[in-house]
Amino acid sequence: MNNAPQKLTMNPARLLSSDPAVVKVALELYDSIKDLPIISPHGHTDPSWFAENSNFENAADLLIRPDHYVFRMLYSQGYSLEELGIPQHGEKGDLAASRNVDPEGIWQTFAENYYLFAGTPSGYWLDSTFANVFGFEDKLCADNASEYYQEINRQLVSERFKPRALMDEFNIELIATTEGALDQLPHHQKLTGTDFEKRVITSFRPDDVVDASREDFKQNVATLAELTGENTNDWQGYLNAIRKRRLYFVEHGRATATDHGHPTALTENLSVGECQTLLDKCLKGSASPVEHELFRGQLLTELAGMSIEDGLVMQIHPGAHRNHNQGVFDKFGRDKGADIPSQTEYVNALKPLLAKFGNDPKLSIILFTLDETTYSRELAPLAGHYPSLKLGPAWWFHDSPAGMLRYRQQVTETAGFYNTVGFNDDTRAFLSIPARHDVARRVDCRYLGELVANHQITMQDAKTLAYELTYGLVKKAYKLD
Amino acid sequence: MNNAPQKLTMNPARLLSSDPAVVKVALELYDSIKDLPIISPHGHTDPSWFAENSNFENAADLLIRPDHYVFRMLYSQGYSLEELGIPQHGEKGDLAASRNVDPEGIWQTFAENYYLFAGTPSGYWLDSTFANVFGFEDKLCADNASEYYQEINRQLVSERFKPRALMDEFNIELIATTEGALDQLPHHQKLTGTDFEKRVITSFRPDDVVDASREDFKQNVATLAELTGENTNDWQGYLNAIRKRRLYFVEHGRATATDHGHPTALTENLSVGECQTLLDKCLKGSASPVEHELFRGQLLTELAGMSIEDGLVMQIHPGAHRNHNQGVFDKFGRDKGADIPSQTEYVNALKPLLAKFGNDPKLSIILFTLDETTYSRELAPLAGHYPSLKLGPAWWFHDSPAGMLRYRQQVTETAGFYNTVGFNDDTRAFLSIPARHDVARRVDCRYLGELVANHQITMQDAKTLAYELTYGLVKKAYKLD
Amino acid sequence: MNNAPQKLTMNPARLLSSDPAVVKVALELYDSIKDLPIISPHGHTDPSWFAENSNFENAADLLIRPDHYVFRMLYSQGYSLEELGIPQHGEKGDLAASRNVDPEGIWQTFAENYYLFAGTPSGYWLDSTFANVFGFEDKLCADNASEYYQEINRQLVSERFKPRALMDEFNIELIATTEGALDQLPHHQKLTGTDFEKRVITSFRPDDVVDASREDFKQNVATLAELTGENTNDWQGYLNAIRKRRLYFVEHGRATATDHGHPTALTENLSVGECQTLLDKCLKGSASPVEHELFRGQLLTELAGMSIEDGLVMQIHPGAHRNHNQGVFDKFGRDKGADIPSQTEYVNALKPLLAKFGNDPKLSIILFTLDETTYSRELAPLAGHYPSLKLGPAWWFHDSPAGMLRYRQQVTETAGFYNTVGFNDDTRAFLSIPARHDVARRVDCRYLGELVANHQITMQDAKTLAYELTYGLVKKAYKLD
Repeated sequence: MNNAPQKLTMNPARLLSSDPAVVKVALELYDSIKDLPIISPHGHTDPSWFAENSNFENAADLLIRPDHYVFRMLYSQGYSLEELGIPQHGEKGDLAASRNVDPEGIWQTFAENYYLFAGTPSGYWLDSTFANVFGFEDKLCADNASEYYQEINRQLVSERFKPRALMDEFNIELIATTEGALDQLPHHQKLTGTDFEKRVITSFRPDDVVDASREDFKQNVATLAELTGENTNDWQGYLNAIRKRRLYFVEHGRATATDHGHPTALTENLSVGECQTLLDKCLKGSASPVEHELFRGQLLTELAGMSIEDGLVMQIHPGAHRNHNQGVFDKFGRDKGADIPSQTEYVNALKPLLAKFGNDPKLSIILFTLDETTYSRELAPLAGHYPSLKLGPAWWFHDSPAGMLRYRQQVTETAGFYNTVGFNDDTRAFLSIPARHDVARRVDCRYLGELVANHQITMQDAKTLAYELTYGLVKKAYKLD
Repeated sequence: MNNAPQKLTMNPARLLSSDPAVVKVALELYDSIKDLPIISPHGHTDPSWFAENSNFENAADLLIRPDHYVFRMLYSQGYSLEELGIPQHGEKGDLAASRNVDPEGIWQTFAENYYLFAGTPSGYWLDSTFANVFGFEDKLCADNASEYYQEINRQLVSERFKPRALMDEFNIELIATTEGALDQLPHHQKLTGTDFEKRVITSFRPDDVVDASREDFKQNVATLAELTGENTNDWQGYLNAIRKRRLYFVEHGRATATDHGHPTALTENLSVGECQTLLDKCLKGSASPVEHELFRGQLLTELAGMSIEDGLVMQIHPGAHRNHNQGVFDKFGRDKGADIPSQTEYVNALKPLLAKFGNDPKLSIILFTLDETTYSRELAPLAGHYPSLKLGPAWWFHDSPAGMLRYRQQVTETAGFYNTVGFNDDTRAFLSIPARHDVARRVDCRYLGELVANHQITMQDAKTLAYELTYGLVKKAYKLD
Repeated sequence: MNNAPQKLTMNPARLLSSDPAVVKVALELYDSIKDLPIISPHGHTDPSWFAENSNFENAADLLIRPDHYVFRMLYSQGYSLEELGIPQHGEKGDLAASRNVDPEGIWQTFAENYYLFAGTPSGYWLDSTFANVFGFEDKLCADNASEYYQEINRQLVSERFKPRALMDEFNIELIATTEGALDQLPHHQKLTGTDFEKRVITSFRPDDVVDASREDFKQNVATLAELTGENTNDWQGYLNAIRKRRLYFVEHGRATATDHGHPTALTENLSVGECQTLLDKCLKGSASPVEHELFRGQLLTELAGMSIEDGLVMQIHPGAHRNHNQGVFDKFGRDKGADIPSQTEYVNALKPLLAKFGNDPKLSIILFTLDETTYSRELAPLAGHYPSLKLGPAWWFHDSPAGMLRYRQQVTETAGFYNTVGFNDDTRAFLSIPARHDVARRVDCRYLGELVANHQITMQDAKTLAYELTYGLVKKAYKLD
């Protein structure tokens, strides 16, 4: 391949279509919303960054080793995770160094293979970050890898690159992190009383105490009992313990939402007796995979009921086949780029929950999918009817220019715009947040521009919608006003 | 949102693409077919309208309360069906009045929320109807709601708004209604001998006597026996009774087609003994859901055989999960915007029927889907091979500008144009019929325009195809010549 | 329809978009790669053509009767396979003549119905072949059918139309045929030592000895034993026999790849004891359909292991429901246009194979699909992670301008370009090969042009990618260097 040096330029009209009629409208729309603050209501940044406000590490540790989008591509082309310095099970800290993998060597490998990212969102986010955050004017390639590496490391130690300073520079009004049910939220508590109290909040993710297929489930439920003083061997005690943790997350982490990463969207509505029996089996470790699934399904319904009580918005993220690569999982653990989407069914799966709570105006559920076939077939029709349902944005593998465009094209005609909730970046890659939100804004403006250019909506409507898709809907949906 | 007053304008090039090269071709194509008469071979208008030729009611009763596309969107945003005046189980007539819901109040709520329909086909159809049928020059909004309401009501009582006059004004050459198997077709009979005899025909929809999961199945079959003098406890007698009703629909309602709204596309080819056993169980009420499904599947095959005998074209509309919202169904009944599409399989499901009758040139089946994934994977390959199969147009949730475009893009390359059957409006919203057909014509011309602009077909071919997609194919497919 | 004579012109910018900004870039890209040699690594041409180098037969025998894309469309519109001269079970040779179907009459029927192919890839390939190979200047229609027929037949007997001469004229650097496991490769052997030795190679397709649902399975395995001297009643002997045939294909046919046309992508990893039991049942004819499926699944895993040993690239082509039309199959046999795609699942299906071998850098599997929903949901995520997986191009029904564009749009953002393998024509229609590759090159250049025009990649990147997609990736993926 031709890996020769190139200028790194970010065209002002990028992603706004190649059709001049659309670009003209889209640019005007984009100009009207591009400076709105970023609301990031769902993501995986580390709250300690904001609490401690320390500088980040070197370029490889910041941009390659924690980003499974990046190293999965390198792995797919034959680079081993070892040579990329990915930490193995149980390892912590600066693994690259501890295993004699030179961070700059990792960076060189990355640079030599940077052409692999052409046309991918990762490539786009990285280019944006290099240009807009670090100010590079040449595209990363084998020849300038070392120069890049030194320059990034030079900047990373500066005051400008402290997390709170970046929050300001990036114009992030609010960011929500995600913590497990047993987390005591020390970092969020540390922010209480600071200027960032209302800008960094948590979300309640109870997967570790509701997914009985996890090896640590029994231990987690025991910890849950300790933290809450409830008898978690009793079904009602177990539910009360979860209730108490939700309140803890509201009080100590300003949570407004919960998050649920189940394998499927199954919900159940079992009798209390059946629930107690299931809980018993799950705690004894004698439950079958089908019973684990029933238990998770029942919990989704219970959690919806709790949302009606305490007002937390419920996010459901189903459909990932986690840790598909057994060899990688055994050696390196979770979140190593080996989660694969799978077919996901919503219409029958959600029926028990919706039959019980779906018409309650106090319930607000945001649905996500990794199966794009459900946009027009299941999700838009469901969200276009049930008052309790809204659609989350294009997610994970589909959080990309073409993926976002398909989302709007396949969702809008049935659900409208007002049953959607704006953008989520869902990322732990803090430096990429402005680029990710910018992509969403550009693609939304392109989509609106196409509707205007096809005379389907007016420019006045489009401007209102651009504002809502960028800022209005997310604040309302996540109760951030 | 910015809900300020706006001009209501229908751009002549609307929906024809924003690409000047495509618009130029598409406009020329559209001009060549825009004045062709409307053929509406499948829909749900009320035949009494044409038989009685009475004026319609007030604006809310005409445009909101019967249109589940409209009120499902309002419901999804938190408006109760009660406050929208939707009739509950068993209620009839002017419900709004009887329950002290002021029709003008409903209209006001609708107008205040009209912005929700931006980018949806409902919004487009309504704008078209307001501009082209009622002559409004300002877009509906909160401020002009009352003015709109009064003006619509003023026009509705005029001679111009009598159904037969609208048939002429709308240039509707033919409209087919849909009646259940037990209907005696009084309205169609009343039209016999009038100028509208050949313009208003029925279709035979036997779901009420073949779907044994319905509560009224046993009663319906008893009525079927009375109407036909057949012993419907006997399998052959039951089939003969259905045969007689088909002939009745041909003779008294000029039917050329049947319609079948099954949950799935399953077909079966069971022995006579198995059929008799199933019928016995269904009539006794002891059949299981699986047996109900088998029975429906067997009936599809039987009905295909009858189509070979009597020449009626068979329409299969599978894939809707009906009445998904139990609470809404319990209180308000069917057709309240809570039908949700679900995954639909055709390749295995249709095999028994096709193995028996699929190569018979006298059989003509038109397949529909709510699952767009089947367009390129199953339906186009099936219709591109079997002489008995044709594809119906984009249906229901997919009867929209982007939905129709996806249909052509995903169907044409494998099935060609000549295995499709033109447009169906499938509506009970009579005033929207011109707008719906106009959308289909525009989207087809856009699609053809893209093929011409990409040099895939010639302009001569495109003009022929525009005519066929608008007028030629539907008349041939539904045997309307 | 308007079937009047038209000029046959192939616009230089065809398929390159209608958007001037895209066309400009796409044309420049296309000009840079249009003269690259054709690599055809997967197809179904007859090796005897190249070994014997004899002229082809008449126009109908060359262009209609062997092309199920063509006659399935005519069949779908009511023409019987008999009147199109399609050979029935057991028939050989010039069937049209033997059953008194005049080949010119078949050609006339085809010409009269040529309008049916408007907008289909078959129509496009045929127009390209007529214009670019035969030099016609008028489009085929009823009026010029006879003239076309005579002119094609006149040209077919010329020196220019001998297969090897066409290989040169078409600029085909290499073509791979596909032979069953029991084939002795006489034609490939005959080419050894000629200039075409390296230009015509085979691929190993063992379906006939691993698919125990075939009626001839037992006989095939007996022949396998004879050819290899192995005891194929013994599991290890059976596997060794397959190993030997693979080596035979490498040595006598220069094979670099294998091909597997299973109904599903299921793989298994059973114990040796279970495998022996399955083999016993399959050979006795007592295996159930589920056991046939398990056996095929186990063989895919075994064959992957053999690929690691001998380096053959593995192609998996799942998802066709073969011979869907029972009546056509009974009378006419396989490959008569009645294979229909069906839903295909990869994530769970491939897991046993991938758990065993998926991280081995010596394994290379190319995955294909007939289910486009798997592009973004399953295949791109899998290929974007596993080093052993690459994605084959849009296949069969989806090998079309819109189909190829959907492939790139839905695959690239997650898998990148470098986990794809260039184009396959997969055809037995030799004369259409240049047109098919030209379509792929044009659509790829259009897609790249859109990325450039949207400022997502640079022109320099696009030129590199155009070369890779046309020539570089296919040679690397199929080990043809």
